[in-house]
Amino acid sequence: MANDHKILLSESELPHAWYNIMADMPTEVPPPLHPATHQPVGPQDLAPLFPMALIQQEVSTERYIEIPGAVRDILRLWRPSPLHRALNLEKALGTPARIYYKNEGVSPAGSHKPNTAVAQVYYNKMEGVRSITTETGAGQWGSALAMACQMFDIECRVWMVKVSYYQKPYRRSLIQLWGASVLPSPSEVTEAGRAALARDPNTSGSLGLAISEAVEVAAADEAVKYSLGSVLNHVLLHQTVIGEEALKQMQIAGDYPDVVIGCVGGGSNFAGMAFPFVRERMERNLDTEFLAVEPTACPTLTRGKYAYDFGDVSGMTPLIKMHTLGHDFVPSGIHAGGLRYHGMAALISALVDAKVITGRAVAQTDVFKAALTFARTEGIVPAPESAHAIRTAIDEALKAKETGEEKCILFNLSGHGHFDMAAYDAYLAGELMDFEYPQESMDKSLANLPAVE
Amino acid sequence: MANDHKILLSESELPHAWYNIMADMPTEVPPPLHPATHQPVGPQDLAPLFPMALIQQEVSTERYIEIPGAVRDILRLWRPSPLHRALNLEKALGTPARIYYKNEGVSPAGSHKPNTAVAQVYYNKMEGVRSITTETGAGQWGSALAMACQMFDIECRVWMVKVSYYQKPYRRSLIQLWGASVLPSPSEVTEAGRAALARDPNTSGSLGLAISEAVEVAAADEAVKYSLGSVLNHVLLHQTVIGEEALKQMQIAGDYPDVVIGCVGGGSNFAGMAFPFVRERMERNLDTEFLAVEPTACPTLTRGKYAYDFGDVSGMTPLIKMHTLGHDFVPSGIHAGGLRYHGMAALISALVDAKVITGRAVAQTDVFKAALTFARTEGIVPAPESAHAIRTAIDEALKAKETGEEKCILFNLSGHGHFDMAAYDAYLAGELMDFEYPQESMDKSLANLPAVE
Repeated sequence: MANDHKILLSESELPHAWYNIMADMPTEVPPPLHPATHQPVGPQDLAPLFPMALIQQEVSTERYIEIPGAVRDILRLWRPSPLHRALNLEKALGTPARIYYKNEGVSPAGSHKPNTAVAQVYYNKMEGVRSITTETGAGQWGSALAMACQMFDIECRVWMVKVSYYQKPYRRSLIQLWGASVLPSPSEVTEAGRAALARDPNTSGSLGLAISEAVEVAAADEAVKYSLGSVLNHVLLHQTVIGEEALKQMQIAGDYPDVVIGCVGGGSNFAGMAFPFVRERMERNLDTEFLAVEPTACPTLTRGKYAYDFGDVSGMTPLIKMHTLGHDFVPSGIHAGGLRYHGMAALISALVDAKVITGRAVAQTDVFKAALTFARTEGIVPAPESAHAIRTAIDEALKAKETGEEKCILFNLSGHGHFDMAAYDAYLAGELMDFEYPQESMDKSLANLPAVE
Repeated sequence: MANDHKILLSESELPHAWYNIMADMPTEVPPPLHPATHQPVGPQDLAPLFPMALIQQEVSTERYIEIPGAVRDILRLWRPSPLHRALNLEKALGTPARIYYKNEGVSPAGSHKPNTAVAQVYYNKMEGVRSITTETGAGQWGSALAMACQMFDIECRVWMVKVSYYQKPYRRSLIQLWGASVLPSPSEVTEAGRAALARDPNTSGSLGLAISEAVEVAAADEAVKYSLGSVLNHVLLHQTVIGEEALKQMQIAGDYPDVVIGCVGGGSNFAGMAFPFVRERMERNLDTEFLAVEPTACPTLTRGKYAYDFGDVSGMTPLIKMHTLGHDFVPSGIHAGGLRYHGMAALISALVDAKVITGRAVAQTDVFKAALTFARTEGIVPAPESAHAIRTAIDEALKAKETGEEKCILFNLSGHGHFDMAAYDAYLAGELMDFEYPQESMDKSLANLPAVE
């Protein structure tokens, strides 16, 4: 075992419950507010969009929520995911640090996204929902939801940001292969889409607009619901299988992380890995460090404000108290599409505010450099998003090399990069840029935060 | 265990030896002949191209050949690969058959190819080779060799058929990401390439020509060797880790296959899975069936001739006694690029001739239909090549449904289809065609077989 590259669990060791950190939050998590009235949002406000079981999970304070057998049965197709000891990377870095990573790229969709997609579709199915709508940017979430819907035999419609629909066609193909229909957003089938096309027939679309389209269709029909791939409490909850498995695997390795690292866009893969370790830190009085890594091109945690803001660009969603760059902040076109979000999950924001979790920003070219080092030592080609975590793990390992500290580093490899080769091409051709915003441009979008008492 | 989707082995259970079926061949395997003299080829003929250790393996009759520790150390990054029980597929088919598949798509390059790439590069490294050349069609082999060379710190140069270089750029990216250089073939750096460009500057290239380029460069420099990804005995040998692992995993499952299925181009993934089970059949007097599945567009085993022929298009390689469609047979442009080879490994051909292995041809659209059924039940998106095995496994399972036979089916999933989404797009758009050759066109290329006494 000592020199094994992988620590595997059997299917019977797949967790039976999700860990709900709401039960253990060290500080109050301010409630979401209605966008118009600024009053706390109630279950009835969410009922048109989500099945009641998920709304209950969204507000639950039960510490553990049982994973239904039918959900576990599908997760078992690829879970438990392997925990790797990065022996080759350690050797290449010449570090005394021990580096472990959890490989979520083994799911059929290639990322952690199916962990919540399967659960969400299950609860929709149980409540008689006939059809689910969602939006997707580059397609990671859309493909995961398509796969889950296929397995539970529910119709799935995905609004994909138009520029990705045409420029990154292969995740679109994946969505179709798993039987879902996918429309470029803006589309002609919604009012929001038609209005956007009327304003500008050549618009390349945006995630905010795609959300509006998917929500509009779901809200109009009781048998149709909407599904979101990150940010919300229940989504983070479903991802905790990652950290629960990793805890068991670290125990088998006879080791325990000094630092836990993950990349953050909306925050779900990071939360999935980190929250069970946050619980252990609280229960066992440990001083585990948690690093949430974001791009300098979208520095929500490191340069944003902890304040109430809309989850979407157009101001239709509930207001969430979170770290935000302002809902009209437009991040640069970096290749880690999954990390281009102006806000952050409320639970992560609260834990950053409570100084349990620390944000860290890394630049795009440094990220790809780390990705290459990883692919050339460990073999696996990482997603650009996941490479943010790799960059920081390597930085920590190199720091340990300087200090001589035998640090134990654990990071989440949220997905593989098989559908991101164009980004690697651009990096290898020296065409990638770094983005660092002048303070005045940050101040501008932060000045537009809604005024909440 | 009974209802598990996956049967996993620990790294310590990775086989310590390859199985060399040459020790047990039921019939004589005619030797390769020199293309000019028609005399058996000796080690000295191969020495300019291959390290001596691989030449020895090519002719060895030792039953087991130890896998060097350094090779096992790299294979352990992803091996042992999982054996899956296709419970969801069985259910969808409503078959009494039990279907198992070995998932070679878990390697970093996404196929079985690294199993031999790592071994070949190791032996080259041991003999002081500084640089390795090879050719690649769609890039599966080139990317596997690039990864292996990166890990042993050997230079790697890949000649990639020009049409693939430009039309399927993402496996090219993978080759570059792993640090190898890749040239479109024909290139300006070889005589063979320059001559081809002089004849037709706009040629789209061919695998045969790319072989000529890679061989030319290797032959000219003692510190440079050449590497081949299929067909040869030592390549098939290195793939037997697949079948050896599968044997252990079937034992853990408490089951044993009635039929073993794999797709065949040059034959290496099929051989890797099948040969250890062929040994068991001989040793234990079983009646296991072996189905080698090829495209109707390249029906080497089902419509070819068992005769001496060249391995390449231009007639430069040794003559091999094999099932062949004739070295100037040009298969149609099907999407399973890895199966477009006019010949077949000598060992497989001899076992087909001895009626141990049976060839079966399947049509492209039927193959993609099976691939979709598989992706929608088991989740995994298969490579078009591997989907030939899936098609046949499904056919066998449906036959068992009719007869009520509780048949045990095992197939090799040689790789994933993440780099083949354009093929799925074409299938979903109804644009794929099937190819069945009229006998006269087959007869034409078979008429050009070299005359060997």
